[in-house]
Amino acid sequence: MPATPARLRILAVGAHPDDLELNCVGTLARYAADGHEVIMAVFTSGNMGDVHILPDELAAVRRREAEASAAVIGARLLWPGVTDELVFPDLQQRRLMIDVLREADPDVILTHSPTDYHPDHRYVSQLVFDSYFQKGLPHLPDQTQPACRFGQAQVYYMDNLGGIGFLPNEYVDITPVIETKKQMLGCHASQFQAMAELAETDMMEMMFTQARFRGLAAGCRYAEGFCRLDAYQRGLTRRVLP
Amino acid sequence: MPATPARLRILAVGAHPDDLELNCVGTLARYAADGHEVIMAVFTSGNMGDVHILPDELAAVRRREAEASAAVIGARLLWPGVTDELVFPDLQQRRLMIDVLREADPDVILTHSPTDYHPDHRYVSQLVFDSYFQKGLPHLPDQTQPACRFGQAQVYYMDNLGGIGFLPNEYVDITPVIETKKQMLGCHASQFQAMAELAETDMMEMMFTQARFRGLAAGCRYAEGFCRLDAYQRGLTRRVLP
Amino acid sequence: MPATPARLRILAVGAHPDDLELNCVGTLARYAADGHEVIMAVFTSGNMGDVHILPDELAAVRRREAEASAAVIGARLLWPGVTDELVFPDLQQRRLMIDVLREADPDVILTHSPTDYHPDHRYVSQLVFDSYFQKGLPHLPDQTQPACRFGQAQVYYMDNLGGIGFLPNEYVDITPVIETKKQMLGCHASQFQAMAELAETDMMEMMFTQARFRGLAAGCRYAEGFCRLDAYQRGLTRRVLP
Amino acid sequence: MPATPARLRILAVGAHPDDLELNCVGTLARYAADGHEVIMAVFTSGNMGDVHILPDELAAVRRREAEASAAVIGARLLWPGVTDELVFPDLQQRRLMIDVLREADPDVILTHSPTDYHPDHRYVSQLVFDSYFQKGLPHLPDQTQPACRFGQAQVYYMDNLGGIGFLPNEYVDITPVIETKKQMLGCHASQFQAMAELAETDMMEMMFTQARFRGLAAGCRYAEGFCRLDAYQRGLTRRVLP
Amino acid sequence: MPATPARLRILAVGAHPDDLELNCVGTLARYAADGHEVIMAVFTSGNMGDVHILPDELAAVRRREAEASAAVIGARLLWPGVTDELVFPDLQQRRLMIDVLREADPDVILTHSPTDYHPDHRYVSQLVFDSYFQKGLPHLPDQTQPACRFGQAQVYYMDNLGGIGFLPNEYVDITPVIETKKQMLGCHASQFQAMAELAETDMMEMMFTQARFRGLAAGCRYAEGFCRLDAYQRGLTRRVLP
Amino acid sequence: MPATPARLRILAVGAHPDDLELNCVGTLARYAADGHEVIMAVFTSGNMGDVHILPDELAAVRRREAEASAAVIGARLLWPGVTDELVFPDLQQRRLMIDVLREADPDVILTHSPTDYHPDHRYVSQLVFDSYFQKGLPHLPDQTQPACRFGQAQVYYMDNLGGIGFLPNEYVDITPVIETKKQMLGCHASQFQAMAELAETDMMEMMFTQARFRGLAAGCRYAEGFCRLDAYQRGLTRRVLP
Repeated sequence: MPATPARLRILAVGAHPDDLELNCVGTLARYAADGHEVIMAVFTSGNMGDVHILPDELAAVRRREAEASAAVIGARLLWPGVTDELVFPDLQQRRLMIDVLREADPDVILTHSPTDYHPDHRYVSQLVFDSYFQKGLPHLPDQTQPACRFGQAQVYYMDNLGGIGFLPNEYVDITPVIETKKQMLGCHASQFQAMAELAETDMMEMMFTQARFRGLAAGCRYAEGFCRLDAYQRGLTRRVLP
Repeated sequence: MPATPARLRILAVGAHPDDLELNCVGTLARYAADGHEVIMAVFTSGNMGDVHILPDELAAVRRREAEASAAVIGARLLWPGVTDELVFPDLQQRRLMIDVLREADPDVILTHSPTDYHPDHRYVSQLVFDSYFQKGLPHLPDQTQPACRFGQAQVYYMDNLGGIGFLPNEYVDITPVIETKKQMLGCHASQFQAMAELAETDMMEMMFTQARFRGLAAGCRYAEGFCRLDAYQRGLTRRVLP
Repeated sequence: MPATPARLRILAVGAHPDDLELNCVGTLARYAADGHEVIMAVFTSGNMGDVHILPDELAAVRRREAEASAAVIGARLLWPGVTDELVFPDLQQRRLMIDVLREADPDVILTHSPTDYHPDHRYVSQLVFDSYFQKGLPHLPDQTQPACRFGQAQVYYMDNLGGIGFLPNEYVDITPVIETKKQMLGCHASQFQAMAELAETDMMEMMFTQARFRGLAAGCRYAEGFCRLDAYQRGLTRRVLP
Repeated sequence: MPATPARLRILAVGAHPDDLELNCVGTLARYAADGHEVIMAVFTSGNMGDVHILPDELAAVRRREAEASAAVIGARLLWPGVTDELVFPDLQQRRLMIDVLREADPDVILTHSPTDYHPDHRYVSQLVFDSYFQKGLPHLPDQTQPACRFGQAQVYYMDNLGGIGFLPNEYVDITPVIETKKQMLGCHASQFQAMAELAETDMMEMMFTQARFRGLAAGCRYAEGFCRLDAYQRGLTRRVLP
Repeated sequence: MPATPARLRILAVGAHPDDLELNCVGTLARYAADGHEVIMAVFTSGNMGDVHILPDELAAVRRREAEASAAVIGARLLWPGVTDELVFPDLQQRRLMIDVLREADPDVILTHSPTDYHPDHRYVSQLVFDSYFQKGLPHLPDQTQPACRFGQAQVYYMDNLGGIGFLPNEYVDITPVIETKKQMLGCHASQFQAMAELAETDMMEMMFTQARFRGLAAGCRYAEGFCRLDAYQRGLTRRVLP
Repeated sequence: MPATPARLRILAVGAHPDDLELNCVGTLARYAADGHEVIMAVFTSGNMGDVHILPDELAAVRRREAEASAAVIGARLLWPGVTDELVFPDLQQRRLMIDVLREADPDVILTHSPTDYHPDHRYVSQLVFDSYFQKGLPHLPDQTQPACRFGQAQVYYMDNLGGIGFLPNEYVDITPVIETKKQMLGCHASQFQAMAELAETDMMEMMFTQARFRGLAAGCRYAEGFCRLDAYQRGLTRRVLP
């Protein structure tokens, strides 16, 4: 096994704009504060998430918001632009995901759990799982990115709204960066109205409740919860969460 | 949350003609008897289920049988006509399922379990899960039905033959409607010979055995067993506890 | 099966004073508001839960606080007085628990989960499970209470602090009674200092966070979460499905 | 590993008279028919199982019935006589169970599942698990039976009424011996009235329903279902069910 | 149920050349030694598994190695030639898998577990599951093989490297054929260098470690571990592992 | 939360002499090499583990061997002397375990898994779980040790022979200390003959196989595998394995 580099590359892959803000940007902010490189990938453009705004216009708004959020911690944003609500673990989207992983060449990957309650989330999780082995194989046809390192990354699955079907067994203390998380979520201004209308939910209050609840379990003020994927030789002996 | 309407719409989605009769029409009959609206969707035409009768002829027979069964309780029949044994959770069938859900706009959905032993059953279950979020989003491309309500339905997974991999945690007492269930299953006359030939099974006797066994567990004469899908804000509070 | 009576008897069994307040008194308050009879059993005297106050003095304080809390909703308090931290599923404590169940003769039992993180909680749960069958058998030796009804009660397991190892699949909307829950928890004044000192926890803030988090999952403002015990003929048919 | 002997000793351990008849005597009858030696151990005297008949009288009745049942297949009956409803995994009952195992020195053990819904069933299962290692250790104090072979037996957990919490993964075809099972269950005449009164259950009809339901799953007319205990070197490579 | 034939047909389906050698050829060798017919299907050509050798050349090498390995035990090799790392449970590959199953018409199927850590392994497992019901249905469109027997085969899932997420509950003693397993794995000469380079693994040493570890659990020198698929009437009463 | 001290106290609790050597002394050796304090507690005297040597003599032999092993890494040995094969989670042994925990006042606890295949292992695990909360409560009656810190330790469950029912999700690389582990296990000379006789096992070869197999999964030469107990505020945010 090659040694773990001093400066890690951290890739977070969410299905929609705001998924990462709700579930893992506190951890990303801690990585960034420790000097590691952070890449945020938003797999779909979020263009179906509003009953009033039409898809093309919405995608543009959502991308600007995601860029503003990433900028808060100096993260790079990857934006494959898949149609919202139509994530499938098929050949075409597999190729997109392999390229996302190759472009980031990560030491740690944070993404949705395969038990998440939203189909796009589940399929993004499946695509990450499916692409992990392939990012380092040089002869795969029809990829736009060259192969990167083989087999280096650890995968952590992140929480979901309400913790449906999810029992974290790793917690990251995000108390020192809770204001950063609030600021990043606040960048997604267009989502607050949609969530209020579709699900009667105040997203900011929801985020604070969940971070506080996970903190209660973990023994700190605010926390984010994760489960690690167990896989063959995926660096199981090294613990790299901050 | 909008209030639960007094007259519910109940949608049952089975993969093949006779799946609903075997696993949930007792519950549907009770809903119908209580004045609720019942929609029965049979996702495939069942056209591969016989070693002698050719597919087109068989599909026509199976549809007439399904219509006769639905008529017994005054249910509406939806019949997308997917090729039997070829259910896939892909884009095309996703669109079909979203339209099924939109046409029914249900308060309760009964469908196969994701742990069922038959691939068509599993994929129908997956398609229902995948389409739930999307039935209420108005800008999805290429749908034939307009968006319906967002996020109202509860999903219950139904039993399978022999209870393979399935431990119900909800039971419905179908003793008062067992004759209705028998009559509806009896409408599927063409299936009895095929099941006897392919699986050496007397379907009617099998149905009575299973209903009686679930009744033993539940504490009544005949019962149907279900497991509820836990999901974010899918009406989790509407239950028998106060 | 005898018919469910119009006025139910609800028994909640907690290991320590304040366990019921933290995890289920919202549900009890709703039962009480609906006219049902509520019995709160606190199995230990809570006499070990303070590093300064000596056991006998502490037990007296804790009992007064529990009585004040029960009085808020007009509940009857049962107080077997077992030594705190020394709950065991042995013969002696089994007899105590059978007598608790016989005295209450409940239609519904709320208690700790067998997967709880505290040993006293686990053993109380086990004692309830072990005593359920026996409350209705008249010839058991050495009981002080006569046998009550056989096999009528449904058992629900309640949440724990931080939701460790616990995924609720039943939720009760306690929004209308959240002030009652606050008032009942507030009766346990002697606990707030101990929890702050031993676990650095503000109990009232913790209770609100957990009730709000469970509400987010359930789709209401405040909720309490439960899992139902599946058991042979324990009234499984009495549910919201028809 | 010593070779498996041609004539096996089969030990079934139930908590109450009739438990073995309901859940595993079909399998025992097949073993007996194949020339193996069968020992039936009933751990309690069943003396609490009637609301009218007093314990001592009931124990005598139950023992005669168990003896009659065992005689049908030429099985030996072991009767430790523990008080019904008071099975505990404590030192005293551990010693009793070790002696039961030593007396039988079995190649195969059938007993209740640790997930059973009745506390006596669970504790008998736990006592069997706890005693397995010890039956072959010669210096254990206060046993009445000498040590037998070390580590030879495979343990199978049996079904329960209604299959609560139990998914069999081994099935034995008992179609050829279903009349024997009926006859053995019929020996327990005193139980039929008690079950009808306490649980409104016709035991014989219940037995046939369950055997038929498990047969449907297994692909035969009547079956009994089991789960095997996985344990270190407990003969995992040898399959000895008939 | 038709009787089990005296000479069984055993089909093993692996995703890549060497998967069967690592996880189940000991069992295949025992079947072959007992006179049964063995068919080894390698679903992909393994053409992506080397960072230096180009895909077409690699596929040719891998096929020759697989043929040499199969020849050791006189097994027939099926080679659908799917592109390595691009297994998908879609319509096209379903058709290929149905034809593989029809060509073999097996009594027993050994394949990857659905919980395996490699996506190709998982999807091969899913394709086998999905194709099982369909191999016996004569009217499926676009197949190249005629329908074979319906519903006869039992499916066993095999181990993976390191036993990630896999707890076997069936073990086959492969001590008598360990040299055969070594010889068959040794046929895959081109893999040893790739595994050493990509995963720093000595495949032969790894195989011996795993076989020995499973043997420790099973109670023999060398073993292979499996989990059986539970499914409706898939011959659950018959145990056919050697 | 108080800060984690620079020099940790590590407590390992095994049921029998040699349990720690087989399952966790590699990890202990790494802790010791890093300058932490290591305490090894052997709960029983191992006095039943031989068919020839009588209990009192055997206990003396086993204790000398355990002392020699602990001395290799400079660990302190605790020896409560419970009778082998008679571990029970009752009041008397709870008190012993609380005193063990108080004497060590640990930051990390390694012990058996509650799913272990040996009853003594399971009950030691349960006693550790049950005693964790109580070690810091000063008024518990009849303890010989004064209360220590409240709520500081993390609990890790260790592997068992053959990995029965155990899937590690934490691995410690013990390659640098494998010779130390060998030396410590070698101190238990009296066990090698007993294991060979009772279970036909070469303990040293078994240890190397298991350490190598876990290393394969983890991605190193030799590893020990663990699962962490999730519990309320038990320091979940701090990862302290080396």
